[in-house]
Amino acid sequence: MSVVPKSLSEKLAGKTSEELTQTRADELSAEVRAPFPRSRKIYVQGSRADLRVPMREISQTDTHSAKGDIANPPLTVYDTSGPYTEPATQIDLLSGLAPLRAAWIAERGDTEELKGPTSIFGRIRAADHKTEHLRFSHIRKPLRARSINGVGANVSQMHYARRGIITPEMEYIAIRENIRVRELHESYQAAGYLHRHRGNSFGASIPEEITPEFVRSEVARGRAIIPANINHPELEPMIIGRNFLVKINANIGNSAVSSSIAEEVEKMVWATRWGGDTVMDLSTGKHIHETREWIIRNSPVPIGTVPIYQALEKVNGKAEELTWEMFRDTLIEQAEQGVDYFTIHAGVRLAYIPMTAKRVTGIVSRGGSILAKWCLAHHQENFLYTHFEEICEIMKAYDVSFSLGDGLRPGCIADANDDAQFGELETLGELTNIAWKHDVQTMIEGPGHVPMHLIKENMDKQLKDCDEAPFYTLGPLTTDIAPGYDHITSGIGAAMIGWFGTAMLCYVTPKEHLGLPDKNDVREGIITYKIAAHAADLAKGHPAAQVRDNALSKARFEFRWEDQFNLGLDPEKAKEFHDETLPQEGAKLAHFCSMCGPHFCSMKITQDVRDYAAKIGADEQAALAKGMAEKSAEFRDAGAEVYHRT
Amino acid sequence: MSVVPKSLSEKLAGKTSEELTQTRADELSAEVRAPFPRSRKIYVQGSRADLRVPMREISQTDTHSAKGDIANPPLTVYDTSGPYTEPATQIDLLSGLAPLRAAWIAERGDTEELKGPTSIFGRIRAADHKTEHLRFSHIRKPLRARSINGVGANVSQMHYARRGIITPEMEYIAIRENIRVRELHESYQAAGYLHRHRGNSFGASIPEEITPEFVRSEVARGRAIIPANINHPELEPMIIGRNFLVKINANIGNSAVSSSIAEEVEKMVWATRWGGDTVMDLSTGKHIHETREWIIRNSPVPIGTVPIYQALEKVNGKAEELTWEMFRDTLIEQAEQGVDYFTIHAGVRLAYIPMTAKRVTGIVSRGGSILAKWCLAHHQENFLYTHFEEICEIMKAYDVSFSLGDGLRPGCIADANDDAQFGELETLGELTNIAWKHDVQTMIEGPGHVPMHLIKENMDKQLKDCDEAPFYTLGPLTTDIAPGYDHITSGIGAAMIGWFGTAMLCYVTPKEHLGLPDKNDVREGIITYKIAAHAADLAKGHPAAQVRDNALSKARFEFRWEDQFNLGLDPEKAKEFHDETLPQEGAKLAHFCSMCGPHFCSMKITQDVRDYAAKIGADEQAALAKGMAEKSAEFRDAGAEVYHRT
Repeated sequence: MSVVPKSLSEKLAGKTSEELTQTRADELSAEVRAPFPRSRKIYVQGSRADLRVPMREISQTDTHSAKGDIANPPLTVYDTSGPYTEPATQIDLLSGLAPLRAAWIAERGDTEELKGPTSIFGRIRAADHKTEHLRFSHIRKPLRARSINGVGANVSQMHYARRGIITPEMEYIAIRENIRVRELHESYQAAGYLHRHRGNSFGASIPEEITPEFVRSEVARGRAIIPANINHPELEPMIIGRNFLVKINANIGNSAVSSSIAEEVEKMVWATRWGGDTVMDLSTGKHIHETREWIIRNSPVPIGTVPIYQALEKVNGKAEELTWEMFRDTLIEQAEQGVDYFTIHAGVRLAYIPMTAKRVTGIVSRGGSILAKWCLAHHQENFLYTHFEEICEIMKAYDVSFSLGDGLRPGCIADANDDAQFGELETLGELTNIAWKHDVQTMIEGPGHVPMHLIKENMDKQLKDCDEAPFYTLGPLTTDIAPGYDHITSGIGAAMIGWFGTAMLCYVTPKEHLGLPDKNDVREGIITYKIAAHAADLAKGHPAAQVRDNALSKARFEFRWEDQFNLGLDPEKAKEFHDETLPQEGAKLAHFCSMCGPHFCSMKITQDVRDYAAKIGADEQAALAKGMAEKSAEFRDAGAEVYHRT
Repeated sequence: MSVVPKSLSEKLAGKTSEELTQTRADELSAEVRAPFPRSRKIYVQGSRADLRVPMREISQTDTHSAKGDIANPPLTVYDTSGPYTEPATQIDLLSGLAPLRAAWIAERGDTEELKGPTSIFGRIRAADHKTEHLRFSHIRKPLRARSINGVGANVSQMHYARRGIITPEMEYIAIRENIRVRELHESYQAAGYLHRHRGNSFGASIPEEITPEFVRSEVARGRAIIPANINHPELEPMIIGRNFLVKINANIGNSAVSSSIAEEVEKMVWATRWGGDTVMDLSTGKHIHETREWIIRNSPVPIGTVPIYQALEKVNGKAEELTWEMFRDTLIEQAEQGVDYFTIHAGVRLAYIPMTAKRVTGIVSRGGSILAKWCLAHHQENFLYTHFEEICEIMKAYDVSFSLGDGLRPGCIADANDDAQFGELETLGELTNIAWKHDVQTMIEGPGHVPMHLIKENMDKQLKDCDEAPFYTLGPLTTDIAPGYDHITSGIGAAMIGWFGTAMLCYVTPKEHLGLPDKNDVREGIITYKIAAHAADLAKGHPAAQVRDNALSKARFEFRWEDQFNLGLDPEKAKEFHDETLPQEGAKLAHFCSMCGPHFCSMKITQDVRDYAAKIGADEQAALAKGMAEKSAEFRDAGAEVYHRT
């Protein structure tokens, strides 16, 4: 392993210009670090000094009324952006983020520090001079669970949960999920933000307040997971489960055709800025190992990977040459880097593969295809299936969570919910129970392309077959006919399946099926999925969801333009769109908008209605409601007075 | 009324430069007229020579296979773009489109040609020299139903339908809705496009083939409408009803703050290009009458308006000065111009208005606000409600359809499905039955902002209260927190409510709540709503829907990149996105894409799986499916051979 460089200049000395381009990762562009307008990072203190949960607080302007100005309370929102949006924090990508969980992990006393990577590949790579300039300089040596009295080398959050232990991670998550709604109850109530539809959660049971004990019990039950590798102490703990806020994942990754390491790191930060709860690194290029190290060391959110992609690189793309030993080595390599969850396509059983032959689009999952090719070449059962318990042993030694891959997911509407897909899903249910036997945290990946009327069937089957393990779906896309807009075709399905019980939604960008997403595509994809996740939270009746809708709508009604922008998911774009029509600064204070113009505005009239209703009083309202509305001229005069004042 | 100008130069002679800017409407930009790639306009011949139904035919490239090239059949899609995408058609905006329905209307012998506009305002405007340069030069004098033996002056399609008459409009629609799927059955079947999910239509009953008689019966029943004013003979007939393809509406309109007439006409053409089935002209500016004339004369799709907007202009924005007489004159003015449907907010009853006072966002419908203001100022029942039967008399004299407005629709999540909204909906049901008594075609407008779990309740209540009259909804938006992305928040709700039974979806653009949409916003909004409508058609199991998904997915699977672009809703954008990553022309012929790179591709592997499955045969597949998969080395060798050839 190389020595930690003293400074950037040392790191860059003697490099060619090409190499310099590739090492340009020490600086993030200003746009990924700028705080959101009128927002500040706050920290909610937990039960111990080093347990401080970051949130974003959005301040608001006053409501102007005839009776004077009335202050509006600040709104607290869930914040996935990590330290990057805190201007006071010095970011040094060469050092990585502060390891906020390091003490929690150490205190548990169930890990050992290794001398270095124990995977063969990890050791080769650490000694390789050709890639030294790309390598993140390890600050820490990897940790691994140690066996106590020869047994139980298990550091999974599920293992603790099942033994009744509430970890600091669980407490952190409980604070985080509540978003201070109950703490701010009084000020929210006074401002009129607490109206809430009851929702229909289809059997999910979200408590009014998330407690650390509730988090523990859900993890113990297997109904939620906390992806948190002991080698990724930098992450801010989060939870994936249907009794919590719906989460979203953003994929990043280079490929043989384009992209560089520096770009990938910035993409990760960019993804968390807009609301990515986890990030999957799907790189398939040359420097897959080094890229991953940079990303993890700088990531405040859990990182997922698909280890079979790297395994395939190691055999030069020849799937039939994959071996269990080499794959195992890859799992250890990545687990020791700190990957928080692995997609493992152990459900692509040999028997299911020919079932895909008559499909319109066969097998579209990359992992599924690799394993199908391997199975057919050897005419043997999928080695991930046959070695599944051995994989569990690795997972629990680092607390890597399973994301059991749907290698046979449908790639088009025609193939949705077919025998191959559902056969695999049943196998994933079987594997979930094996993972749980090992106290390994597990979620299940889902489709794909599914027409609306088949989405619920899919969700219900997953809940049943996989005994309520969290579902993690890609979309689903509800039609195939809109390349260039698949964030939308899939956002529809994502909102619905999130409502029905999916715990995390994997985003889809406008470039899906067409090319690699750039930063704008990532932003567009993430915002679309934040919408889907929030719409699902609303429909489920999540106690912390509707308060933001109410605050924003009230701001809209009161023509507090800046507040309307700032309370939204993308304040910059909202302001930009508004300013295209009415660029003058004064227009944002005006009591009208560009849709109706200054002389007529429905919201203004509504205020008059409201004043009027107050004036005529409750008795009159009751009379009106009974249809006894023919009243005398005195009211007409009163009304005329109200409306002639403008 | 002015003389038809001989040429543009005459029209423009002696104008100031400002006036010239406003009259620039004789030329459309090239982008609104360019045919879609590899598409041509075809015409399906009906039972009479002048009944030719336009469709778009998309040709495809060949499938390359080991056995040689296999031709793919062209795909026919529904086409709303009118003559504009037919390069052979000479477009002259000063003359308007050809009046293709003129003979059909004349043959019925139940109309009379008027000497000129019969509305007071129409006559004043026709004689006004100040606006002469803005005025469309009427080619035809307005028509009106004539009474036969003193009764029954009714030219509505519903009136004919109820008397058992199948009009040419009905036959046209039957041909149009089938999109040749049954005609092309054999070639589609050979190409593998006919797989279809059965769907769940929630009680809608869409026949395998739409017949003219089915169209008639649905219109007679009130379950569908054909908006087709006798003074808009240029339109290509279409139908709105839940047993037909789900339709979308695009709004255009200037306002006091921005926009010009020329822009509005081009916006209408632009909207139909991308798939707008109807267009609502929501102008509120100075030249509302003239703008409308230009739009109607050049529109191949039905035009809807909200007459109360213009009525308000006539009283200088003072709602309390509105009168029935003036409103009535406005209806006649617009009916004689050829407006196909009117939004009439007759359900905003006095008794419901105070129910909105406690809402988070009160009354957000402009029409609803205007009438609320009037009702409160006069303390009288809504004059649209009290004069409803008189309105019916006007509607049937020109065949204008009702779009009964939801003036009390919720403007935010908190206000969804409340007493005010549902009270109004019940009144709309009552009014539907009055309209039907007059054989006046009627649809019902719906919300708005509704969380997902309340959408079905809304739809079901509409079907029940309004006796299955078509529902026409704005979205609904499923969350309030994403200004700048409300095409997406609402696209989710639109797809769902379309599936549940809504017949037409009113689009929402990204600029909703923020500003006026430009051309890009209109395109984005329409494509989003075409996605929602198509996703709904798929989920309902519409017999003509899935064939396009299957064709596109097959093209995708076979790396026919150009076909994938061209079969989609927006070929230009798909190609543009693809080319951002792989601009070389050769890449569009390559058997890989930018996501995975040239060395690994899941779709390629799937083809190998398919070859393999074919090789091992059906017996082997059955054996595999039974899990008896441990076979001998001969298969491994065979497999290895298959995969080593690359």
